[in-house]
Amino acid sequence: MATAERSDLVRFSDRLKHGRALAEDVWSIYNVANLPADCINLGQGYMNFAPPEWVTNAAKEALGTVAANHYSHPKGRMRLRQALKKVYDPQLERDLDVEKEILVTSGANEGQYAVFTAFLEPGDEVIMFEPFFDQYLASVTFNGGIPIYVPLHPPVNATGRFSSDEWKINPKELRSAITPRTKMIIVNTPHNPVGKVFTRAELEVIAALAKEHNLLVMSDEVYDTLVFDGKEHVRIATLPGMWERTVTVGSAGKSFAATGWRVGWLFGPEYIMRPTLAATTRIVFCSNSPLQEATAVGLEQVQERKFFETQTAQYAERRDVLTKCFDSLGLPYTDPEGSYFILLDISRVRFPDDYPFPESVLGRGRDFKACWFIAIEIGVSSIPVSEFYCIEHANIGEVYARFAFCKDLDTLRHAAKRLEKLKEYIV
Amino acid sequence: MATAERSDLVRFSDRLKHGRALAEDVWSIYNVANLPADCINLGQGYMNFAPPEWVTNAAKEALGTVAANHYSHPKGRMRLRQALKKVYDPQLERDLDVEKEILVTSGANEGQYAVFTAFLEPGDEVIMFEPFFDQYLASVTFNGGIPIYVPLHPPVNATGRFSSDEWKINPKELRSAITPRTKMIIVNTPHNPVGKVFTRAELEVIAALAKEHNLLVMSDEVYDTLVFDGKEHVRIATLPGMWERTVTVGSAGKSFAATGWRVGWLFGPEYIMRPTLAATTRIVFCSNSPLQEATAVGLEQVQERKFFETQTAQYAERRDVLTKCFDSLGLPYTDPEGSYFILLDISRVRFPDDYPFPESVLGRGRDFKACWFIAIEIGVSSIPVSEFYCIEHANIGEVYARFAFCKDLDTLRHAAKRLEKLKEYIV
Repeated sequence: MATAERSDLVRFSDRLKHGRALAEDVWSIYNVANLPADCINLGQGYMNFAPPEWVTNAAKEALGTVAANHYSHPKGRMRLRQALKKVYDPQLERDLDVEKEILVTSGANEGQYAVFTAFLEPGDEVIMFEPFFDQYLASVTFNGGIPIYVPLHPPVNATGRFSSDEWKINPKELRSAITPRTKMIIVNTPHNPVGKVFTRAELEVIAALAKEHNLLVMSDEVYDTLVFDGKEHVRIATLPGMWERTVTVGSAGKSFAATGWRVGWLFGPEYIMRPTLAATTRIVFCSNSPLQEATAVGLEQVQERKFFETQTAQYAERRDVLTKCFDSLGLPYTDPEGSYFILLDISRVRFPDDYPFPESVLGRGRDFKACWFIAIEIGVSSIPVSEFYCIEHANIGEVYARFAFCKDLDTLRHAAKRLEKLKEYIV
Repeated sequence: MATAERSDLVRFSDRLKHGRALAEDVWSIYNVANLPADCINLGQGYMNFAPPEWVTNAAKEALGTVAANHYSHPKGRMRLRQALKKVYDPQLERDLDVEKEILVTSGANEGQYAVFTAFLEPGDEVIMFEPFFDQYLASVTFNGGIPIYVPLHPPVNATGRFSSDEWKINPKELRSAITPRTKMIIVNTPHNPVGKVFTRAELEVIAALAKEHNLLVMSDEVYDTLVFDGKEHVRIATLPGMWERTVTVGSAGKSFAATGWRVGWLFGPEYIMRPTLAATTRIVFCSNSPLQEATAVGLEQVQERKFFETQTAQYAERRDVLTKCFDSLGLPYTDPEGSYFILLDISRVRFPDDYPFPESVLGRGRDFKACWFIAIEIGVSSIPVSEFYCIEHANIGEVYARFAFCKDLDTLRHAAKRLEKLKEYIV
């Protein structure tokens, strides 16, 4: 890195100074490449199984054509936009305009980035609930925005299993976070990493404030097909007066166990989608064609195949392998109503101060050390939750490790077996 | 569009006011959907043939695995970075570091965008040669940069075929465009839409100024595998002292006739690549995995299969179908040394002033009308070249229409046959 310090070299933009943009990110630190080969990876949230064969077959078929190997329209392939309309029209009770109200993006991530590019002015404030999906932070600051944090509060003195629904926002805190510079609120339901599925009443509180202060709402609902135990997934865009100010985010990666396909989408009113289309057109021009085509086939057939129902039942079974294990450990943890993450309270897990931690972990919160220790000694990797808090509030997240259960049952059972050993380190 | 004018709705960012970001772009206006069904599309630069079967087969194979359906490392899949190293090491006479000097992006377009995000401060000036690939303009302004234009001059009084080499930069004009706020020069060789392959001497002029003024160079070389007639493709990164300040851009879409795969890459020194990695990680997180894997297989085998040599010969044959036709029309045109575009001087093509042009064309340059007229009356679509100039200099581009010859021979012969009819409209 000697070159990076030479003063005669062109300096990178100041925008990279914010939002931990140049720090080694948590995904790299806890990457399988850095951990023992036999460590079971419950860290990063991708599946250790393939997408359904009938969906990958559609991708293979698309690869055999000419058109699906070339540029798509920046709005997305018409077949995919039609398939999205078919899925969402009944849920939204709307007649979505495939030309003006639906936009395919290069993963949900790029879609969100494009919304920030399209709407943020330097100094605009964006409210996000902590813990937050870590990409929001830099995506906002890269586009000149200022993140404003409102915490979700876990229950106090939890002793064992507690529902993700017990993480609550404080409406007064939310109201007091709003200033004349506030432009947008990011909602994430089902929530990563908490697993919370926001109730209608909770969304109504957010909606009322958004309307009162003329704010946009970006509703990240990429886990919308993964809601358990009959809990209702409410879309804030369906609340009275909210369609007009909400852009909703979806993901093929999460819906079809294909996180590497980089196909996501947005829907919302034309005045939000049009500038966002202008942004995404310049950022990526268009999204990859063969996997858009396959996603279209997937969405066309989900209803007939009852695919999402079956998949949700499978994920619930996977979740229960871990929750049973955590019950037996006697540590407090969040039982998620949605998404595929469990937050385990690791504050009672003890490790030696002089344990040989790598440098990347040493400067960070206690949870970074605990997760490293558990990965090495127990052989199961997880993600420290302080990464999902702003630097100032990172101490709140230090209590938790995030375990992903988007893995096959055998792997999870194997992990649960190993995690039993954690008992030796609990005080 | 009534909603877009309501003052109570949240306004989009000022950054969209620049660079024609919200205007209907030329690709949409001359989209096949807007033209008669039997119009032959030589407009947008995508192929009407599929990628090589041995490359699509590799994509299908990747889809049958687990890992290649999930997230890749933000730097790109290791197999692809290794394959890129294998191709570029001998060309660059370097030992590229796959961890620090190569970065896979979601198409060359997103790679370029990420460089601007990583390096531009508000008010930084970026020099580009006109005509320029239209995406540069908005990609620079979205990131706070100010585009500065330096024209490539066509030969004066050309009467027929002339080489793309006759488009020249004026070193004095380039020097006088540099100010204390200049941060970057964009080089594009082989050039879209001119087809020019910059000579070593020309690149040395640019390099000397970049070194004198401590500027970055972004060298867009996405057509590097499409250079004809034994012309040498010189990489500015290989000139003395230039590796240290150059980021080079490549594209799987152009290399393997797969424009819809959205796999591109960058290479350059670590101090440029590290901030760019930070930018692309937040913009898209990572690029799609199965098509990265297929691109790796493609690059691994090109040498043994002599794929690029064969492909170049095929493109040269395609080019010659159109150039013969233009010879017979007696109109001046640029014979390209690289890329797959021909610029035809359409200033002597006459059309009625009261022709029923669509509204999208009416406000634009004469070439927009000429291209529309040719598409409707002759049945061959092309792209007006004023789109590749800034608004102030659009009149220079008005002389030309861009015809893409990345189409199969039958289609090009059919188009040439139709274009003979253009004679009736030449004065």
